[in-house]
Amino acid sequence: MNIDAIEAAAARLAGHARRTPLLSSPFLDEIAGRPVHVKAECLQHTGSFKFRGAWSAISALPEGTRGVIAFSSGNHAQGVALAAKLHGLPSVIIMPSDAPALKRANTAALGAEVILYDRATEDRDAIGERLAEERGLSLVRPFDDAQVIAGQGTCGLEIAAQAAELGIERATMLTCCGGGGLTSGIALALEARAPGIKVRTVEPEDSDDVARSLAAGELLRNAFQSRSICDAIITPAAGKLTFPIMQRLCGPGLSVRDEECLKAVALAFLRLKIVLEPGGAAALAAALFHGDALDDGPVIVTASGGNVDPAIFARALETLPD
Amino acid sequence: MNIDAIEAAAARLAGHARRTPLLSSPFLDEIAGRPVHVKAECLQHTGSFKFRGAWSAISALPEGTRGVIAFSSGNHAQGVALAAKLHGLPSVIIMPSDAPALKRANTAALGAEVILYDRATEDRDAIGERLAEERGLSLVRPFDDAQVIAGQGTCGLEIAAQAAELGIERATMLTCCGGGGLTSGIALALEARAPGIKVRTVEPEDSDDVARSLAAGELLRNAFQSRSICDAIITPAAGKLTFPIMQRLCGPGLSVRDEECLKAVALAFLRLKIVLEPGGAAALAAALFHGDALDDGPVIVTASGGNVDPAIFARALETLPD
Repeated sequence: MNIDAIEAAAARLAGHARRTPLLSSPFLDEIAGRPVHVKAECLQHTGSFKFRGAWSAISALPEGTRGVIAFSSGNHAQGVALAAKLHGLPSVIIMPSDAPALKRANTAALGAEVILYDRATEDRDAIGERLAEERGLSLVRPFDDAQVIAGQGTCGLEIAAQAAELGIERATMLTCCGGGGLTSGIALALEARAPGIKVRTVEPEDSDDVARSLAAGELLRNAFQSRSICDAIITPAAGKLTFPIMQRLCGPGLSVRDEECLKAVALAFLRLKIVLEPGGAAALAAALFHGDALDDGPVIVTASGGNVDPAIFARALETLPD
Repeated sequence: MNIDAIEAAAARLAGHARRTPLLSSPFLDEIAGRPVHVKAECLQHTGSFKFRGAWSAISALPEGTRGVIAFSSGNHAQGVALAAKLHGLPSVIIMPSDAPALKRANTAALGAEVILYDRATEDRDAIGERLAEERGLSLVRPFDDAQVIAGQGTCGLEIAAQAAELGIERATMLTCCGGGGLTSGIALALEARAPGIKVRTVEPEDSDDVARSLAAGELLRNAFQSRSICDAIITPAAGKLTFPIMQRLCGPGLSVRDEECLKAVALAFLRLKIVLEPGGAAALAAALFHGDALDDGPVIVTASGGNVDPAIFARALETLPD
């Protein structure tokens, strides 16, 4: 994996993915005690950065591809469904039968065939393999795939260019981190295009496998199922491709509490006028409330997704003073 | 007023105002039955397009200007306060004493001196004139000023360029309309740069002075104080500069109900991941719920501001199905 793959993905995404804005507010700078710049990937198609990786992977498939398949109950599902539809390809998304009705409906409305399975009694991978073989479908992995990482890396290319426009040469880049696709893509892009911007991961405190893995020097899994509301960035473990990249390029991992993410959601509403889901606000929460763990200087954060249930958003708003 | 003034304002705003994105969602297209493109000015500095006009006016003041003064309890106040601060000029904002505490606090935090007056017993204009004379301050009008209109017109230049990128030559442009600064600026910019895009105004139904004025062919005032929640676009009447421009360039005015604006706020949350105030969602509401009053073809709308009270936003979210 290197910058060439990311540049090639950027060429394939041009005119299809959005160049999302880098936002800021003097009110957030004051809370953080330093300049904070927010890469608003919630404004990407389907409401998260996942569209980039999905488009990158699908646009790199060989001619004659008959369709794609993905496992996801969340943002990856919607990104794959829309990217496949825009390529004129059928998509099958395999979701647990207890996935939220809204996410199922959205994914189906974006043109995917949604197939539900029972987490307790059925084997997801077996269902996927059978369908892929029967129908000749190509699997689009959520993060551990070179083309997916390259697609997410296009977000890093934009950050490098936007930071240069602002005159920022040295900064800390905080990423909301699940499996590490976005983090490793951004880290590769910044290594090549903005080497003074150093990446650190942010995770929910009860799902901090990447922070522990970086500290231990080996790929560790989460011991138990997280109960965090940051569902978008909860994964059992980082990937075989993503972890070595993070190990080479990222500083120590950070973690945040759910309450801090809810406060960051509310402050992004109040000061930036963007809608974030809790997992998409984790990096902003770290910038606002864990500045003591960061080097001096400006911070850039990913606001990686905005697919939040209205009830959770209403809860976040309650954290604001009257 | 012509396109040259807008181009000159754009040169002064370059690197200071944000180029806001033009957003869309297949879900909104489906509701509207046509493509809908949303110019997200809520993402502008201070959360509304008002920063453009304020920057344009303040950057055009003569050398030696000692400071600025404005009357506003809302978005204009914040735009002027920040633009003045960034020019290194003091600002005085005159607000009614019953203005929301958050707006007062925001305006003060952006560097303005906030002076409160009692709507019932004090004469706002007299206070402003006395202060302007005593301190040598320049008045920044909210809409009826050539440099303010030129600044808002930069939004129209961006729309023309963004529509061209999408291959849109003919469309209806719907603007959230109060005093007509944004509308007339956009109309002038589109006349010169995208003449196939025709502007129509959108107002709250109990504050539809521009629609009535356009129909009557003369400048009419609202007969009574509106009770709409769309406070950002409630004004007694359009301006002596803005109305003739709208009369020459705009089609018949539209109006929307408060409930429709709340639904549009909720749909912008759900589908675009942006935060709108009710008045900033009026044009989107017309696109979604009044398509029968529009010519065929794509619609572009201004999402002109996002400075909404959390309680009102929570009310909007309640309009979404579970």
